[in-house]
Amino acid sequence: MSNRRVGLWLIGACGGVGTTATLGLAALSRGLTDTTSLVTALPLFNGIDLDGPADFVVGGHEIRQAGFRATAAELHQRSNVFDENLLAGCQEPLAAWEANVRTGTLLGAGPTIAKLADRPDANKAKTARQAIEQIKADLVAFKETNKLSQVVVANVSSTEPPFETSEVHQSLAKLNAALDGSPLPASSLYAYATLDLGLPFVNFTPSLGATCPALEELAVLRHTTVCGKDGKTGETLMKTVLAPMFAHRNWRILSWVGHNIFGNRDGIVLDDPINKSSKIKTKDQVISGVVGYKPQTLVSIEYIESLDDWKTAWNHIHFKGFLGTKMIMQVIWQGCDSLLAGPLVLDLARLSLFAQRRGEVGVLKHLACFFKNPHGVTV
Amino acid sequence: MSNRRVGLWLIGACGGVGTTATLGLAALSRGLTDTTSLVTALPLFNGIDLDGPADFVVGGHEIRQAGFRATAAELHQRSNVFDENLLAGCQEPLAAWEANVRTGTLLGAGPTIAKLADRPDANKAKTARQAIEQIKADLVAFKETNKLSQVVVANVSSTEPPFETSEVHQSLAKLNAALDGSPLPASSLYAYATLDLGLPFVNFTPSLGATCPALEELAVLRHTTVCGKDGKTGETLMKTVLAPMFAHRNWRILSWVGHNIFGNRDGIVLDDPINKSSKIKTKDQVISGVVGYKPQTLVSIEYIESLDDWKTAWNHIHFKGFLGTKMIMQVIWQGCDSLLAGPLVLDLARLSLFAQRRGEVGVLKHLACFFKNPHGVTV
Amino acid sequence: MSNRRVGLWLIGACGGVGTTATLGLAALSRGLTDTTSLVTALPLFNGIDLDGPADFVVGGHEIRQAGFRATAAELHQRSNVFDENLLAGCQEPLAAWEANVRTGTLLGAGPTIAKLADRPDANKAKTARQAIEQIKADLVAFKETNKLSQVVVANVSSTEPPFETSEVHQSLAKLNAALDGSPLPASSLYAYATLDLGLPFVNFTPSLGATCPALEELAVLRHTTVCGKDGKTGETLMKTVLAPMFAHRNWRILSWVGHNIFGNRDGIVLDDPINKSSKIKTKDQVISGVVGYKPQTLVSIEYIESLDDWKTAWNHIHFKGFLGTKMIMQVIWQGCDSLLAGPLVLDLARLSLFAQRRGEVGVLKHLACFFKNPHGVTV
Amino acid sequence: MSNRRVGLWLIGACGGVGTTATLGLAALSRGLTDTTSLVTALPLFNGIDLDGPADFVVGGHEIRQAGFRATAAELHQRSNVFDENLLAGCQEPLAAWEANVRTGTLLGAGPTIAKLADRPDANKAKTARQAIEQIKADLVAFKETNKLSQVVVANVSSTEPPFETSEVHQSLAKLNAALDGSPLPASSLYAYATLDLGLPFVNFTPSLGATCPALEELAVLRHTTVCGKDGKTGETLMKTVLAPMFAHRNWRILSWVGHNIFGNRDGIVLDDPINKSSKIKTKDQVISGVVGYKPQTLVSIEYIESLDDWKTAWNHIHFKGFLGTKMIMQVIWQGCDSLLAGPLVLDLARLSLFAQRRGEVGVLKHLACFFKNPHGVTV
Repeated sequence: MSNRRVGLWLIGACGGVGTTATLGLAALSRGLTDTTSLVTALPLFNGIDLDGPADFVVGGHEIRQAGFRATAAELHQRSNVFDENLLAGCQEPLAAWEANVRTGTLLGAGPTIAKLADRPDANKAKTARQAIEQIKADLVAFKETNKLSQVVVANVSSTEPPFETSEVHQSLAKLNAALDGSPLPASSLYAYATLDLGLPFVNFTPSLGATCPALEELAVLRHTTVCGKDGKTGETLMKTVLAPMFAHRNWRILSWVGHNIFGNRDGIVLDDPINKSSKIKTKDQVISGVVGYKPQTLVSIEYIESLDDWKTAWNHIHFKGFLGTKMIMQVIWQGCDSLLAGPLVLDLARLSLFAQRRGEVGVLKHLACFFKNPHGVTV
Repeated sequence: MSNRRVGLWLIGACGGVGTTATLGLAALSRGLTDTTSLVTALPLFNGIDLDGPADFVVGGHEIRQAGFRATAAELHQRSNVFDENLLAGCQEPLAAWEANVRTGTLLGAGPTIAKLADRPDANKAKTARQAIEQIKADLVAFKETNKLSQVVVANVSSTEPPFETSEVHQSLAKLNAALDGSPLPASSLYAYATLDLGLPFVNFTPSLGATCPALEELAVLRHTTVCGKDGKTGETLMKTVLAPMFAHRNWRILSWVGHNIFGNRDGIVLDDPINKSSKIKTKDQVISGVVGYKPQTLVSIEYIESLDDWKTAWNHIHFKGFLGTKMIMQVIWQGCDSLLAGPLVLDLARLSLFAQRRGEVGVLKHLACFFKNPHGVTV
Repeated sequence: MSNRRVGLWLIGACGGVGTTATLGLAALSRGLTDTTSLVTALPLFNGIDLDGPADFVVGGHEIRQAGFRATAAELHQRSNVFDENLLAGCQEPLAAWEANVRTGTLLGAGPTIAKLADRPDANKAKTARQAIEQIKADLVAFKETNKLSQVVVANVSSTEPPFETSEVHQSLAKLNAALDGSPLPASSLYAYATLDLGLPFVNFTPSLGATCPALEELAVLRHTTVCGKDGKTGETLMKTVLAPMFAHRNWRILSWVGHNIFGNRDGIVLDDPINKSSKIKTKDQVISGVVGYKPQTLVSIEYIESLDDWKTAWNHIHFKGFLGTKMIMQVIWQGCDSLLAGPLVLDLARLSLFAQRRGEVGVLKHLACFFKNPHGVTV
Repeated sequence: MSNRRVGLWLIGACGGVGTTATLGLAALSRGLTDTTSLVTALPLFNGIDLDGPADFVVGGHEIRQAGFRATAAELHQRSNVFDENLLAGCQEPLAAWEANVRTGTLLGAGPTIAKLADRPDANKAKTARQAIEQIKADLVAFKETNKLSQVVVANVSSTEPPFETSEVHQSLAKLNAALDGSPLPASSLYAYATLDLGLPFVNFTPSLGATCPALEELAVLRHTTVCGKDGKTGETLMKTVLAPMFAHRNWRILSWVGHNIFGNRDGIVLDDPINKSSKIKTKDQVISGVVGYKPQTLVSIEYIESLDDWKTAWNHIHFKGFLGTKMIMQVIWQGCDSLLAGPLVLDLARLSLFAQRRGEVGVLKHLACFFKNPHGVTV
């Protein structure tokens, strides 16, 4: 633990991923769990001055009437995760951090996400500029009230519809000139506000976030960092691990089918085919990136309510070996989505804060291994 | 293709692996198949002066009345592999190379392997020295008759019972003094003869082969090379690919169960619990070697006749993620054993011949990635 | 074997299912294979006067330039089925029966199926009446030329788009009055012609066929039989076998997900979402029919070219046991579609011919167990 | 609910199965759970005068220092089953029923089970007669103290080593003459005592229990009932459901491999190869019983600690279809052993009590569907 006090601000704070990251910080700082699944707890990172769990204060934006305690209880009850003693021991910090949560913006979030919104004090911003100003005000208040030396912002909200960038996103000057309209999806409004305050931004989702030249320019201008996008948590991680095996053994992948089923709130949002298309795109490109040709691939993501937060994926890999012989490898993955993603958010927060202290600016390309579609890296 | 003529001498020549490697050479040199599954055909190896398929002549030792053509036909008929046109197009070289096959030794092969022997001209050697002399005579005749510039010997026979080395295997002098008894298993008799003639030796099995100080000394003395042991063909390859994922994500492996079923002749030999123990040992150690602790592991190999050469493996990996959450990954592998192993034998033959031409001597440690239990490398 | 000569007329004759049924008849009558997978070869049917394989002559309608020999060779080459000796031994009858194949109608077959048509002598029928007359002429010629005592017609063609019946299909009189227009899909044109000639009709597909009151009336009028629809070959068979287990043990099915992948010509047709919807409907209803409530179900069928005729299905069954405990059963099915369906076509042909000889008329309800969506039976 | 008060006496009371059955009774009678997984709660049983959950009082024999509350807490903590609110709401009856538990006998239980014994007041019986008398005294006290109209005894203890019956077990007279020695395994001592008191006996394990002529004779003499043996809970149930599908479709099963892994206390006992052999025998015979021939079968049961009570089974079924085509069906079962078995114990208790009230005596053959190796029924 350092003597620093730092902040973790979560966009979509009280969803499964945000709540798990938050509960994890509370449990780690109270000694109620071990560091399993935290990459930054590996011996490799010994001797690096990372922030400890107890150094963090949590806050965030949320569009639903939800709190860390209620979401944690719901995950426990429906998905059968979190020991009840661990939950009981963390109620105090969860309650305190809930008080830091502010209402998020719906501007540019798309209709499926907007349908989930139920907070009474909805953000009324009509232009990008208004939304950004409100977000900045929330972030500044969080930092000052809690006397934080640094704050990192992580987007862990549901996937937005695809967004096509245009000329206006190619430079900061052009983007600034357009802010009285609505030139950005919600994820990018958060990114803009974050970067404009000189804070590091982590995009754990497939949404646009800071992935355009204008916002990269802003990050450099304000001496801060960005990384993203779409945390590589389970099934895609497995793909990036397995695909090189086929390449190095000179086996020809004929087809790779991945069927994903799960039942959490992200699943409801991804049941909208528009939102789903953003997600499938980042999941589907990894294989041809590794093997250098395009085998037939199929990725489906389906909402099956009874699975709750348990993402189950069946992968069927058909490949050709010596003398034309076709063989098959199948992988069945049964992982809990929030529990896979939560610790990676903490890793990225710690590494982003550390990078900023070291003076790094712009895209943190060395964090590519954490993402399905790494920002700034061609795969 | 070079202007060289080289020999590939196979111990257990007419088993599934030896036959597949041989058929592959014939098919490749006649343009009847592509180079899928040959590691040495990857672009990485472009520009290296490896021997081409048409440069090879094949011969070997065998203890059964079996030929390349009969085994290939049997694999085609029972395991449903090898296109019949490919088979038809290769009958001529297979027939020619069958004529190069000589009767192998049973000295030190163990009773389960001895039961398979049915050639009328059984090797009558009573001492290690006699067996080695006979093997050397066969190798010299093969090399001279075929006017070969180099010959590489690859052991692709069935797994022997475990063999404990002792003081006598610690130096060449001590071993030489014991050769009028029976101080070596069959695989090491072949290794001795090969190395003493200055030929490279590849041990594709878990048997002892050249894995003792005395034989390593002999390899250096005769300016030749050795590599082994136990080719990493399918399920274990997959383990060494997946285990690092768990390590790098700081997930705790709780248990790793691997059940293997298959029905080829190796399966009959491995149904003897003594022979099986040699195999399970090399399969079972890879995980703890990667992750640095010992999760509960279980490896079974069972003979299921109907599967013939199709090795089917179910892997159940139970691991602990964040906040103590247990998750599961399962892998089902359906591969054809001989087709997985055959091309690797060709890779190792080509790389061993090349290494010898470059003047390398002793254990070829850089070939560790081809083996379950790499000779000369601590995992 | 009887002294009868009977005919099997296949709609979609030279597809995978039709070709397999035909090859099977040839192989069985020549003693080149055993009766495995023929339900009517079970001891249960001993003593019933069914037609033997050698009693059959085969013919059919087809819209593509394809023959039994070419399709059988293609299945052998691409899907790795049929022993080449069996194929060689059946070339003669396959050639003879190919000569009986006539060009089918495209009227009402839908655009996706029409795209596959490439025979030069395309059926030019513009009205249902014309198409029916042409079909009848083909059937009569087949029966007379071959001196057959009976002919059974089996629809084994690709799945048509869904077809909504209306008032016109409620009685034969109304239907007859509409035949100068196009009131029927192709499958029902074949059914009409068949029944009007007093021949039994088997609908092995999910298409409409004879499933409407008007055509049932025609069957009774002409003293012949119908059965269907959609042969229960693999994955759905497994569902109807497993679902009762959950019901009888009072386990609550929470969700049942079935992902099917395969790569044959049917797959190309089913890749059209319209045609696919017909198929998914019959696959998806079986579970709630058995358990009496509607768990969340999901059925997907996807075309994966490399699998050819190998239908691979992953089923994930999530269920609740005692004290609210959620458990999981997963089933992976790897079957070859044509080989599963072909013998059932022969069973249904034999049972339909036998039923007609016994004097049964109308819907053969006792054959319900052969179909996903049994005609005349409420599930 | 009736006006009766009945008793359920469990041998191995505080193991996972006994505890789950007990917790289930408590939860059902307090309305804290629904009747999912109770076969006797199906509509089929409406109108039959079965005892309701609130009619039961629980007691039993146990050789370990364990109580229902501790075992339930351990299952909750290690296997992640039982909602904590359900547990909390049942503490009172669990505590009350724990007071009814008495020390069991180790006579004839075998060394592996004896190793688990740690109660201070170990049963000191040296002869079968002494052990039986002690068991009877415990049962009589339970019945009288709790004013019970009937008591059913269910053996849910760990599997004993195989026991070979001999001449002495062929009649009650011969057995009685031998009781001053040790002619019976522990499970049969309990059975003798139970039956001699005229109480129904349920053998949920593969142990001998009442499965010999002498004890069947005793059951009839005392007007009571027996049923067994080895409850068909999960993997074997699935086999008996699937095997008929292969038979009725005339597919030839080539091999059926079932690998079972689990980590509860039964697993420790089954890790002793002697005890395991009893279990594998009853699991392995079901398939040939159904299909009428003997395909190669393999059943393994392995103790994998991390799985706790979650029995995971991989089944690989290799079968031959039409024209010799080999196909594969794989089933992966992930069920919680105690939760599968517990409700069946309640079903069998209710049905045994009802049968006795109706005046049935001897072996209850109609309960065969509940058992792997049904007593009194040839499969």
